[in-house]
Amino acid sequence: MIVILKSNADERLVQSLIREFEAQDLKIHFSQGVNSTILGLVGDTAHVDEEKVLANDIVEDVRRISEPYKAANRRFHPMDTVIDICGRKVGAGYFSVIAGPCSVETQPQMETVAASVKESGAAFLRGGAFKPRTSPYSFQGLENEGLRLLLAAKKATGLPIVTEIMSESQLDDFADVDVIQVGARNMQNFRLLKALGRCDKPILLKRGLANTIEELLMSAEYILAGGNSKVIFCERGIRTFETCIRNNLDISAIPVLKKQSHLPVIIDPSHAAGNTWMIEPLSRAAIAAGADGLMIEVHNNPKAALCDGAQSLDLPQFAAVMADIRKRVAFEGRELQG
Amino acid sequence: MIVILKSNADERLVQSLIREFEAQDLKIHFSQGVNSTILGLVGDTAHVDEEKVLANDIVEDVRRISEPYKAANRRFHPMDTVIDICGRKVGAGYFSVIAGPCSVETQPQMETVAASVKESGAAFLRGGAFKPRTSPYSFQGLENEGLRLLLAAKKATGLPIVTEIMSESQLDDFADVDVIQVGARNMQNFRLLKALGRCDKPILLKRGLANTIEELLMSAEYILAGGNSKVIFCERGIRTFETCIRNNLDISAIPVLKKQSHLPVIIDPSHAAGNTWMIEPLSRAAIAAGADGLMIEVHNNPKAALCDGAQSLDLPQFAAVMADIRKRVAFEGRELQG
Amino acid sequence: MIVILKSNADERLVQSLIREFEAQDLKIHFSQGVNSTILGLVGDTAHVDEEKVLANDIVEDVRRISEPYKAANRRFHPMDTVIDICGRKVGAGYFSVIAGPCSVETQPQMETVAASVKESGAAFLRGGAFKPRTSPYSFQGLENEGLRLLLAAKKATGLPIVTEIMSESQLDDFADVDVIQVGARNMQNFRLLKALGRCDKPILLKRGLANTIEELLMSAEYILAGGNSKVIFCERGIRTFETCIRNNLDISAIPVLKKQSHLPVIIDPSHAAGNTWMIEPLSRAAIAAGADGLMIEVHNNPKAALCDGAQSLDLPQFAAVMADIRKRVAFEGRELQG
Amino acid sequence: MIVILKSNADERLVQSLIREFEAQDLKIHFSQGVNSTILGLVGDTAHVDEEKVLANDIVEDVRRISEPYKAANRRFHPMDTVIDICGRKVGAGYFSVIAGPCSVETQPQMETVAASVKESGAAFLRGGAFKPRTSPYSFQGLENEGLRLLLAAKKATGLPIVTEIMSESQLDDFADVDVIQVGARNMQNFRLLKALGRCDKPILLKRGLANTIEELLMSAEYILAGGNSKVIFCERGIRTFETCIRNNLDISAIPVLKKQSHLPVIIDPSHAAGNTWMIEPLSRAAIAAGADGLMIEVHNNPKAALCDGAQSLDLPQFAAVMADIRKRVAFEGRELQG
Repeated sequence: MIVILKSNADERLVQSLIREFEAQDLKIHFSQGVNSTILGLVGDTAHVDEEKVLANDIVEDVRRISEPYKAANRRFHPMDTVIDICGRKVGAGYFSVIAGPCSVETQPQMETVAASVKESGAAFLRGGAFKPRTSPYSFQGLENEGLRLLLAAKKATGLPIVTEIMSESQLDDFADVDVIQVGARNMQNFRLLKALGRCDKPILLKRGLANTIEELLMSAEYILAGGNSKVIFCERGIRTFETCIRNNLDISAIPVLKKQSHLPVIIDPSHAAGNTWMIEPLSRAAIAAGADGLMIEVHNNPKAALCDGAQSLDLPQFAAVMADIRKRVAFEGRELQG
Repeated sequence: MIVILKSNADERLVQSLIREFEAQDLKIHFSQGVNSTILGLVGDTAHVDEEKVLANDIVEDVRRISEPYKAANRRFHPMDTVIDICGRKVGAGYFSVIAGPCSVETQPQMETVAASVKESGAAFLRGGAFKPRTSPYSFQGLENEGLRLLLAAKKATGLPIVTEIMSESQLDDFADVDVIQVGARNMQNFRLLKALGRCDKPILLKRGLANTIEELLMSAEYILAGGNSKVIFCERGIRTFETCIRNNLDISAIPVLKKQSHLPVIIDPSHAAGNTWMIEPLSRAAIAAGADGLMIEVHNNPKAALCDGAQSLDLPQFAAVMADIRKRVAFEGRELQG
Repeated sequence: MIVILKSNADERLVQSLIREFEAQDLKIHFSQGVNSTILGLVGDTAHVDEEKVLANDIVEDVRRISEPYKAANRRFHPMDTVIDICGRKVGAGYFSVIAGPCSVETQPQMETVAASVKESGAAFLRGGAFKPRTSPYSFQGLENEGLRLLLAAKKATGLPIVTEIMSESQLDDFADVDVIQVGARNMQNFRLLKALGRCDKPILLKRGLANTIEELLMSAEYILAGGNSKVIFCERGIRTFETCIRNNLDISAIPVLKKQSHLPVIIDPSHAAGNTWMIEPLSRAAIAAGADGLMIEVHNNPKAALCDGAQSLDLPQFAAVMADIRKRVAFEGRELQG
Repeated sequence: MIVILKSNADERLVQSLIREFEAQDLKIHFSQGVNSTILGLVGDTAHVDEEKVLANDIVEDVRRISEPYKAANRRFHPMDTVIDICGRKVGAGYFSVIAGPCSVETQPQMETVAASVKESGAAFLRGGAFKPRTSPYSFQGLENEGLRLLLAAKKATGLPIVTEIMSESQLDDFADVDVIQVGARNMQNFRLLKALGRCDKPILLKRGLANTIEELLMSAEYILAGGNSKVIFCERGIRTFETCIRNNLDISAIPVLKKQSHLPVIIDPSHAAGNTWMIEPLSRAAIAAGADGLMIEVHNNPKAALCDGAQSLDLPQFAAVMADIRKRVAFEGRELQG
């Protein structure tokens, strides 16, 4: 960590600041320049609060050199993390497709979709029981009845299920869920993250619409620091100035997360695109860029879907996309799970 | 609402879509163009789900003409809402300053700050008991002990208190809080919003870092639709490409929210700026642009603050800013509360 | 085009506005709603100025239904455009790699790089003679001497050259250049675009850092409307809130441009990434998503480069990336040029 | 400047890099940490190219401590610059309003508008002769005939004129223009900036839609470094994720530019808002935040304007806004020019 002092800093205050850092077991390297003086802090600075240093009258600026996350940091965990979920492996050379409707609607719907996506090659079944909707007047999900229908579909097909949690108060209801999804709007719901750190289920952590990759890593750090090491990142598009698509899939997030962290990275092309016709090209890009999997919305009758119909593939469309995915995963020398 | 059909839409499917809309009590105006056919839906379209219409094979695009919010909409509530909180009026011609530390730390701190900001002219005392922090290694707040210290400071000074809630499971603990703050990261925590809609306390609803004004209005709609009409908006800076400041205060949000809605609008210059020296010019701009109040971070010893010290005014600085605010509120012909 | 009238619009003014539109050979469909009245304009609206319509007192909003570009629009030109440049085909099933240094520095540099990238499989040689630099104190390019060195390298290797123009006043100097590049900062330099519309050289039109895809299409429209149909789009990353990389490569731009337009699309991973280690994953994603080519910065000695060394591959690195590209282009069933 | 070395950097390469810096008259402070080694460069680093340093194999990251601009930097020019234009003072305690139509259309229009805005209190007349338009099918301005009409209006009213240049090739035609405006899209047209650095006219330099404040300062540096010290900044809204307004006026730009630079800052509320009803609140905010002036679009008949009618005030509206401005400028203790 680099602390830049104001040019007119009082010598006694500088010495006092240095003693404060030394009391935190940090060594100080001192550089006296013409316009500014620089303190280099050497040691474990993850616990040094930048804001607090910045509040000091004699400090002009603070720059962090080392990353503020440790458990999620590849520097300290060079090997890829592989998470085993009901026999499916996520991470490293393995590739998984999560498929299913935006929201769980009826038993026949879930039975039909689950059987079909399994047949096409999906490894996991997704479906929303609790739906975060911008408008209070939109369909909000079947709630616990939705969880029940998901578990029935799992029983029928053997597909592990992935579904979104909304609050730490729901954890008991999610006891039989295989992968708990944290939605984009909850990426910095820290009470929820802390609670998830205390359970031992795999967590699919979606990046917020306008959260930096460092913030995503820090949210994973909350879960990991709590003792749960099974975190899977999910990039689902970011919010930019562009208006002709819903969100911009941040393809760079894949190599950046892979370099900075050891955790798996899944891509959700459906939410990024907001339409069906871009799911195939975005999926292809994600596989080529090194993603560990895809999450794709599939519905048996998209135009009657209660949610996100515009971006849901129908069953034959998903079968076709899945056939394309299969060839590409093989070309990359990776092992498709399912 | 305008529905644009694909140029080659099958006539029978068009008729079937029209019947679907008519079943929702909407009148249809039909425009046949050269490259596209347009349906104009007339009636109450707030409950029509754009996504669902878009999922239809024959639909190219959907454009909403009227706003999707009703209770928060000035069109249906032309008069400014004024909220009375322990005798302080918020909204319309009244102007309030909320001041206090980022986080509640100790009893002497709260006593000192509360007495001083009251003396300077603040109408409300703020302080965080539960702190949303990007890093799990940062100070997370005194929690319920912090609420206790806030209430003690209220008892000592008479200042009503404003503090942030993190989850709907905390509502009982917030029973004596005067204004419940929803932080930027929770603006779309819909379970929390629904719970707040069922209580009758004033809610200070902060805009998310990258949420549109329409999304902010829809989050207010969640609370209003639940039966709680006491919502105060708070703009605290948005995330853009600019890196030389922490966030860009969106000054346009004031006139836009005032035009679209009847609810009060407060500005938080401290979080937008991320430093102390910009608090005065941003506060001046907010008053001139028509804000109903300001929320300013004040600490008795910013450089020892456990949180956000860099953006906290000390007590004499706040007194000076408050003197400036007083003159400007008078110039605007508005009535300072406190 | 849809014109939404204010609810209280004076009937005579409405009739007068309708007559104005009819005088422009447009048919009007009239929809009277409860809160708003809508005019649907049918006919060729590309020449209707939205701003001018919006300025009308009785108009609340204007929404364009059809795209404002015609010559660049796939709707009117369903077949892919293929541009032949010295025997290399750009567009449709063909794939080209443009390689070379950020800036032309010396004759030995250009000879070495040109021979090496040709050997590795590049189809075009790039190199900047005129450099747009943020700082006036940075190296600004060799200018016309740089053009001379590029032409010498072309003579030696047969590789057609791509280089950036800064102003319409330079067109004569660019007479022997094979592909004229318009840099991101000049995407809306309309005098330059008009001048390029009057020449018959292929134009590589880079998307501005924060320009929408529609604006990019409109800039192409300037060139096409002037009579030059040889426009190649180049996506090079967009500016967002993310700070851990230089720019976010907008991978969605490929399928969107391919759907909306018939013109070829090239990706520049070097400028997007701002480093060398992301060039390979981004290139892979671009090929998979359907790009027609790549533009990659290559230098014989990146650490001595006068410009952009941090993002330049050295010659062996480029040879390795090119070998990877070759396999992937074949996998996609496309024909590598060069 | 801080150079962060990779943890495994070869000692000989480190020594060689240090010698390179020393050869540029820089002193080196060396900090050896556990995970990284840091070089602090002391001396004049404005000419050190970060990109080039970054390209070095042993360098992990480079951080600039001091600003890369000098002539525009308040650190080296603590006093406010005041620019005298035909007797109007711009900067420091003075306040000027620039008013006029988006585009020059006819002689009667210019005569009417010029006489009226002068009467209302404007200090300068604006009007576009060359118009940068997104669409090639939109009105492109009267060009040199427009300049002639502007000069005639100046002759009639005595108001100095402000008009936009598009290319360095037009400088001779602008010989009688009082203030040359560089539009947002040309903020990084470096050939134009260099040419303007060689003339001695005041330059109104608009910030690009998505350019950082540091980039704006660097563009001013181009002009100043060329010998022309008369630069006036103009903030006109930035491009963000928000869609309900055209651009977000960056009110923070005023205090930031005032702190970092000594040059005057003008605000253009018309282009930021894109409508007329927000011009007054944005103007009020700009005055309160410390702007040195405003540029406002005014037209005698906005609904017939050939350009930007939706955001142009008519003559009585401008007179009313000007009366409000006059009171506020007096309240701030500043001196209205005109």
